[in-house]
Amino acid sequence: MQFDVFGIENPLIDLLVTVPDEFLDRFQVEKNKMYLIDQERHQLLLAAVNDLGVLPEPGGSCANTMLGIAQLGGRAAYCGKVGADDYGRIYIEKLEQGGVTSFIKTDGHLTGSTVILVTKDASRTMNTFLGACQELAPEDIPLDGLRSTRLLYTTGYLWDTETQQQAAMVGLNTAKEAGIPIAMSLADPFCVDRHKDAFLQILDGYVDWVFANQDEAQAITGHDNAHQALLALRRLCQGVVITLGAHGALVSAGEETVYIDPFRVTPVDTTGAGDAFAAGFLYGNAQSCSLHQCGRLGAYFAAQVIAQMGPRLSGNVRQVMAPVVSDPR
Amino acid sequence: MQFDVFGIENPLIDLLVTVPDEFLDRFQVEKNKMYLIDQERHQLLLAAVNDLGVLPEPGGSCANTMLGIAQLGGRAAYCGKVGADDYGRIYIEKLEQGGVTSFIKTDGHLTGSTVILVTKDASRTMNTFLGACQELAPEDIPLDGLRSTRLLYTTGYLWDTETQQQAAMVGLNTAKEAGIPIAMSLADPFCVDRHKDAFLQILDGYVDWVFANQDEAQAITGHDNAHQALLALRRLCQGVVITLGAHGALVSAGEETVYIDPFRVTPVDTTGAGDAFAAGFLYGNAQSCSLHQCGRLGAYFAAQVIAQMGPRLSGNVRQVMAPVVSDPR
Repeated sequence: MQFDVFGIENPLIDLLVTVPDEFLDRFQVEKNKMYLIDQERHQLLLAAVNDLGVLPEPGGSCANTMLGIAQLGGRAAYCGKVGADDYGRIYIEKLEQGGVTSFIKTDGHLTGSTVILVTKDASRTMNTFLGACQELAPEDIPLDGLRSTRLLYTTGYLWDTETQQQAAMVGLNTAKEAGIPIAMSLADPFCVDRHKDAFLQILDGYVDWVFANQDEAQAITGHDNAHQALLALRRLCQGVVITLGAHGALVSAGEETVYIDPFRVTPVDTTGAGDAFAAGFLYGNAQSCSLHQCGRLGAYFAAQVIAQMGPRLSGNVRQVMAPVVSDPR
Repeated sequence: MQFDVFGIENPLIDLLVTVPDEFLDRFQVEKNKMYLIDQERHQLLLAAVNDLGVLPEPGGSCANTMLGIAQLGGRAAYCGKVGADDYGRIYIEKLEQGGVTSFIKTDGHLTGSTVILVTKDASRTMNTFLGACQELAPEDIPLDGLRSTRLLYTTGYLWDTETQQQAAMVGLNTAKEAGIPIAMSLADPFCVDRHKDAFLQILDGYVDWVFANQDEAQAITGHDNAHQALLALRRLCQGVVITLGAHGALVSAGEETVYIDPFRVTPVDTTGAGDAFAAGFLYGNAQSCSLHQCGRLGAYFAAQVIAQMGPRLSGNVRQVMAPVVSDPR
């Protein structure tokens, strides 16, 4: 197989820009919130930040995970849709520089982006414009590329438009027919609320590994505690990963249910913690690590990401990860 | 059977006294620490606090658990040794008022006690004098009483003198021969360090349910994480309870390993949290609750105790516990 993990989802270019507090007031946004914005507001915002020194980085939940897997030394591929514009070109370029094989398609819409407004106090205010992401269609899925992976990974964020859903289903069906295991992240609790029934069917019919934080796991199963949510998810999927925030994580597959201790760090920015957990876990899975070690890799990678600003780990990742990578229990 | 749980351990009368900060300086003790003191210092301390309004309450780790079980509505009995003095008499009286059947023996030594110095900032400094506790001997164990229980509970604190150890072994052997399940708490990490080999043998040969916090579980198994400590303890005992402090707990028996969510409270005083967890868990066990529900009872009871000052819950315990007791999942 050519790839360890093949990701399909929304390529959103992160546009990080440092702004004064007054900027937030002017755009009537509150610190540390996420906003889904339309094209008009997107362009207004871009025009306003353009002179402030925007730093573009490939982002989006699934892409963050694929980049994390590549950083760890895994072989990752990624498909989604960007615009035929500068940001689209930069996205693909930087994704490949990050070691991820791109199967990204382009079309006439604007590249989706998240304008991340950083203020002096290190707070981050997100403004996401989906743009071309929403145009991903069944014919965009690279069937041969997909058949060359050991695992397909996607997230609930693909369920928001009909063409994206259809594209996702082509991916799921192709993988299932080829006997390729499927992993899916439930994205966020609001996404679960929007698509609960669809997700339950997908989990039951397609998904081998489900990734959820405790809120998402409880939202989709209707339980008020991690244990019962885990049992309910295990009835749908052979493998379940529930992250418990600062309390650690639960991973379960086959006869095993494993509690993963949290690794203690001073949290700086929790953005991307779930994406990083999935990256560490799936990297371990690709290396045939034990369930416990997969969980430790996920928890440790997520902890390192939380201790830095931004959704991805900078610096020498292999060195940072050495304490757990060298110890494949 | 007459009792749900029969406890054997050290009856220490808690002597709660409010003192000014200068008092701690005078006795050269630091806030929130525990001191093991000899008879001379014990009497010096008692003389000094005598006029300050001392509040005596039955205490000691195992007695706290038995009183908790009784508060929850379970049938608890307790054996240990106090002195033939006022504090000994008060101990037995208050224990029975708390609903626990006393099999406590007396002898000529002073009743063991913990002088708890409370300062204005609600900190608690403990000064434990073991006294008569250490004289518990094999002939003190009430064999008929013990054979009338559904479960024997003891703790590692009994391993510090030879006669106590011998008494503990009479209890363990009597229970084992009668087919009565045995539960044991590892007491504290220092206790584990002192008696590691003995505890491993006892766990393997006698104990059905072991209770440990994460530090104790890791100390006795030599692992650096909760999961591997749990697996190692499961090789010795059919049931394992590992409390994870603010992160929740793991309970495991048979084919099941269950993560117990922490119940969120504002911590006031964590004294007795482990004793309360054991009480809730063993009460649930006596009611034939599921493993998950036993764990929830333990976690919820412990959370309520942590939210109050002192090692035991005051107020209407059945009412406080209603949210979990009424829901026997």
